Amino acid sequence: MSTTTFAAVSAVKQQSETQFRADLSPAWTIGGRPNGGYLLAVVARAATVVSGHPDVLAASAHYLRSPEPGPAEVEVEVLRTGRTASQLRGRLLKDGVPQVETLLTMGVLGDAEPHWQEGVPRPEFGEFPEQPWGPGAAASGFPIAIQNEIDVRFDRPLTDGPSGRGELRGLLSLPADEPFDPISLLFALDALPPATLDVAPSGWVPTLELTGYIRSRPAPGPVKVLHRAHLIGDGRVDESCHVWDSEGTLVAHGTQLAGIRLG
Amino acid sequence: MSTTTFAAVSAVKQQSETQFRADLSPAWTIGGRPNGGYLLAVVARAATVVSGHPDVLAASAHYLRSPEPGPAEVEVEVLRTGRTASQLRGRLLKDGVPQVETLLTMGVLGDAEPHWQEGVPRPEFGEFPEQPWGPGAAASGFPIAIQNEIDVRFDRPLTDGPSGRGELRGLLSLPADEPFDPISLLFALDALPPATLDVAPSGWVPTLELTGYIRSRPAPGPVKVLHRAHLIGDGRVDESCHVWDSEGTLVAHGTQLAGIRLG
Repeated sequence: MSTTTFAAVSAVKQQSETQFRADLSPAWTIGGRPNGGYLLAVVARAATVVSGHPDVLAASAHYLRSPEPGPAEVEVEVLRTGRTASQLRGRLLKDGVPQVETLLTMGVLGDAEPHWQEGVPRPEFGEFPEQPWGPGAAASGFPIAIQNEIDVRFDRPLTDGPSGRGELRGLLSLPADEPFDPISLLFALDALPPATLDVAPSGWVPTLELTGYIRSRPAPGPVKVLHRAHLIGDGRVDESCHVWDSEGTLVAHGTQLAGIRLG
Repeated sequence: MSTTTFAAVSAVKQQSETQFRADLSPAWTIGGRPNGGYLLAVVARAATVVSGHPDVLAASAHYLRSPEPGPAEVEVEVLRTGRTASQLRGRLLKDGVPQVETLLTMGVLGDAEPHWQEGVPRPEFGEFPEQPWGPGAAASGFPIAIQNEIDVRFDRPLTDGPSGRGELRGLLSLPADEPFDPISLLFALDALPPATLDVAPSGWVPTLELTGYIRSRPAPGPVKVLHRAHLIGDGRVDESCHVWDSEGTLVAHGTQLAGIRLG
C-alpha cells in the first residue's frame, strides 16, 4: 500500500487570490482517469483556503470532462460570506479547459450528538476480511490504480458476483492510515466501485453529478461505507452513499447520478 | 385554487444570449419568500432556452439569499456542449445581487422502462382525502401563500401531529391541473413542507442546498411525493424526496440540506 497521503495528492498551491495549482496523481485513477470524489476534494481544498468558514457542509460537482493526471488549475470565487455559512464556486481546469464545476456551502461543523437520526439506514455490516481487495477483484476490465492507494475491504467478496441488491458495504482507509477530515470524506463518498456491480457487471460508470453533505467531523480511524444503487434506467443510475466514522457517527451522505451501459 | 399556471409564474424573458428576466410571484411563497424549488425551476427554464439538450437530468442549487418576490434576473452560461449531455451554470439575481447559484446537466430523457429499480423506496401511500390542506394546516406560524396555488393532500393529516417517522406522503397537483414536465418536477422535489414536521414542529427550515435528478418524463396527472427527513443535528437536516407520476413511474429524486432550529 502507498505511503503518499491523500493530503499530499489533493494539495493545492495558491497562485493568486482566486487561482491555485494542483497536481492530479496518476495513482488515484480508474482506467487512467482521476476518481471523481478525488477531483471534488481538490477543489474543496482550494475553497477552504479562501472561505471565511473552515468546513465543507455541502458540495455539488458536475463533471464536464474526465481529465488526465498531471498539472491542473483550480479557480475559486467567493459568492457570499455570511455569519454562519459562505458559498463558493470552484472549478477544476486542465490547460484552461474546465473539467469539473462545483458549488460549495461552507460553515462550521459542531460536535453535538444528532438530535434525531431515525431516517438514516442501519446496514448490518458483516465481518471485514484481513486482506483488502486485490487487483482484478472488481473484474472491470480496466486498470484500477487507486486499488494500490486506498484500503477497501468488503464484507461480501465482489468475486461472489452480484447479489441483486445493488449494495456494497466497505471498510475504507486512506494511505498510511491518515485520519479522515471533511475534505477527504468527499472522496470517501465516491471511493467504492459502482454499487451497480452488485446488480450486473458493466463497463465504465462515469459520474455526471455528485453531491455530498458533511454532517460531522470524523473520529480517527477507518470509515464504514454503505454504497447503494437505486434505479438503473435510460442509461443512467442514481446511487447514494453513507459514511460512518470509527465511533459509529454518520459523518457524510452523498448522492450521485452516473452514466451506465448494461448488457 | 389559483388558475395562474406554474408555466406562467416560472416564465423567463430572454434579454440577450445569456440574460433573462423573471418575475417571482408573491403567491408562490412561504413566509413571504419564494419556494426554493420554484426558484430552481425558474433558472432551469432559462437553461433550457440556451442548452443544446431539452431536458434537465441533474440540477444542483446552493441558496445564498432568500429573495423577495418581484422582478429578478437570470444569467446562464453554457459550460460544455457534448453529444449526449451539456452542462450549464445558472444564477438568479435580484437587483444584480446573486440569490441562487445552480449547476445543471441537460440531456434527453428516454421512454424505456427502468432496467432495475430495486433500490427505490416503496412507500405504502394511503388514501388521499378529497380536501387539500387548508390554511394553517401546517401550523407553522407564518403565512403560506403557496397553499392557495398548489393542491397537496396528505394521506395522514398534519394536524394529527408528528408520527416520529420523519415522513410526509402527499398527492401534488399544479394550478389548473397543468401537467408536470421535467422543470416543474424540480419544484415538486421541494413542494411539500419540511419532513421534519413529522418529527417535531420548528420554525423556518431554509434550504441550503437542493439537488434534483429527473429520471423520466412524467405522465399527465397529479404526482405522488414521498418526502423524508434523515438526520437532524448540528442545526441542519438532510431530506430526500421521491416523486412518482400518475402511472407509478419514478420520475424524480432529490436531496436537500436545510437549516433547522428545534426546541
